[in-house]
Amino acid sequence: MSSYRESGVDLEAAAKAVSLIKGMAQGTARPEVVQSVGGFAGLFRIGEGRLLAAATDGVGTKTEIARLAGRLDTVGIDLVAMCADDVVCTGAEPLFFLDYIAVGRLEPAEIESLVAGVAEGCRRAGCALLGGETAEHPGVMEPGRFDLAGFCVGVVEERELLGPHRVEEGDLLVGLPSSGLHANGYSLVRSALLDRYEPSSVPEGLGRPLIDELLEPTAIYAPTVLRLARDGLVHAAAHVTGGGFVENVPRALPDGLGAEIDRTTWSVPPVFDLVRREAGATEQEMFETFNMGIGMVLVVPGEAAGRTGAGGGRIIGRVVAGSGLDIR
Amino acid sequence: MSSYRESGVDLEAAAKAVSLIKGMAQGTARPEVVQSVGGFAGLFRIGEGRLLAAATDGVGTKTEIARLAGRLDTVGIDLVAMCADDVVCTGAEPLFFLDYIAVGRLEPAEIESLVAGVAEGCRRAGCALLGGETAEHPGVMEPGRFDLAGFCVGVVEERELLGPHRVEEGDLLVGLPSSGLHANGYSLVRSALLDRYEPSSVPEGLGRPLIDELLEPTAIYAPTVLRLARDGLVHAAAHVTGGGFVENVPRALPDGLGAEIDRTTWSVPPVFDLVRREAGATEQEMFETFNMGIGMVLVVPGEAAGRTGAGGGRIIGRVVAGSGLDIR
Repeated sequence: MSSYRESGVDLEAAAKAVSLIKGMAQGTARPEVVQSVGGFAGLFRIGEGRLLAAATDGVGTKTEIARLAGRLDTVGIDLVAMCADDVVCTGAEPLFFLDYIAVGRLEPAEIESLVAGVAEGCRRAGCALLGGETAEHPGVMEPGRFDLAGFCVGVVEERELLGPHRVEEGDLLVGLPSSGLHANGYSLVRSALLDRYEPSSVPEGLGRPLIDELLEPTAIYAPTVLRLARDGLVHAAAHVTGGGFVENVPRALPDGLGAEIDRTTWSVPPVFDLVRREAGATEQEMFETFNMGIGMVLVVPGEAAGRTGAGGGRIIGRVVAGSGLDIR
Repeated sequence: MSSYRESGVDLEAAAKAVSLIKGMAQGTARPEVVQSVGGFAGLFRIGEGRLLAAATDGVGTKTEIARLAGRLDTVGIDLVAMCADDVVCTGAEPLFFLDYIAVGRLEPAEIESLVAGVAEGCRRAGCALLGGETAEHPGVMEPGRFDLAGFCVGVVEERELLGPHRVEEGDLLVGLPSSGLHANGYSLVRSALLDRYEPSSVPEGLGRPLIDELLEPTAIYAPTVLRLARDGLVHAAAHVTGGGFVENVPRALPDGLGAEIDRTTWSVPPVFDLVRREAGATEQEMFETFNMGIGMVLVVPGEAAGRTGAGGGRIIGRVVAGSGLDIR
């Protein structure tokens, strides 16, 4: 949507940067590299039939919402979610996590709050907090400002690897419910909402203060996905983060296959309608940026779909011949 | 030195934050965790007798020097150095690296330059660039501003693990020469030098433009350390980064042992004298912040010291009963 570029985020430039990075990464490859830039996680062979999966991510400018609210103890959960649930899309069990915190001025109480969130996220994802770095950038970042980056490593037996190579026409798509906006699209959210609403106000339809909705921690799917995968119920998985439904679901599909999504199979949570109205975006544009209520999409064999409901999953579509995503 | 707090970096607050983080990390531990927050790298058991080593770091405000100079293609080398050479202090071979780049406005040409440096760093360290994230933070970071964080994972056989457990009284300290300031203390360097000198000027004693000195990429020691370690010549290693000599060398030593350093065994490069003069710091204070010309300290058995010279190493001190560091 044009409004997204107006919010300052340039997705075309981002795609171009990714393409440049891919080429440069190839120039550093070792024979153990199975998958580099482009998948949900990088894959590196660590022994006979075993792969490490590694991913890095941040929480974007959700940090600004936390700063404005003075509530720093949950964005660490978002940070772990962003990384660990990229790792689990390969079928890998998240093993450990490291965090990087950049701050304008180092206030131990603030760092404690941030890391408390990271530790809680690690517990939810089942991984160990193995290390971290706190960097003070006086004169470069303003006091009170901070940024978070995370890094997660998991392990998967090669024969249990999830991904497009397993997906077949007729597979069903099972959506796991999101807890809200998660940690993507916040530059757009901030420009669409924060000039018009007080953080403490309750916009129509939301049923709670805006700030609570905006700070809701990202759901962590890793334990659910792993359990279903170990029961042989999952072919591939797509973590719906930056680029929304439209960019992420096709990353779980092989060439020659696309997906049909039945938009009536779930209710889009009210916060997405609020953002759409205030940003003047179309629903299609919203699906290109946000999770729209489904934070993880599992591609499952047709006969297994009925057994994936325990994690809150529901059938939202199917894999078809073709390409891309058709949202009806 | 008081001037360091005046430059905006608060080392006491940093130490307090690390202590808080240690406690919280323990609350997420899995049985495979061998070493968490506090060592040069976290250690995680990945199989019978094998450990993964993982570290994260940034390059501090050396990014500002790169931005001011409009030369973005070498700070990525510094970034890999900071992480890979923490990993190698455990004896682990760096396997792969991921980068996180936060920018105010995403300019593909700038990202290309930054990642070109990261890729070059990976080649020098012998690890694969396995993935990365570029995050645009409009309205939070100014256009042109950027921050870098990196994550490196290596592997080591448990019987080949380097560290304090191997060190004995009488071991010698071998210093490997640094290429300059590396990527620590830049908030102090900027406040001490950039108000007084034009970046293109040649301060007395430096022999080249200040900007070239300040942007000199960090030396990468991993291949040298690994080669010497595989020849059985290394007991422990200390990467001299934030906290300088004084904080880092003791991290390679067990309780009950300290180190004597003979300050006359090497020449401190002129840039450190320049910073000391302009910051009004004592030499002791300089050793508490900077590498002072020695970027990696190896603890080696006495009989092996003569065989460690090939990497440019020289004997700079010895391990003695006691604690801490005595610089003479």
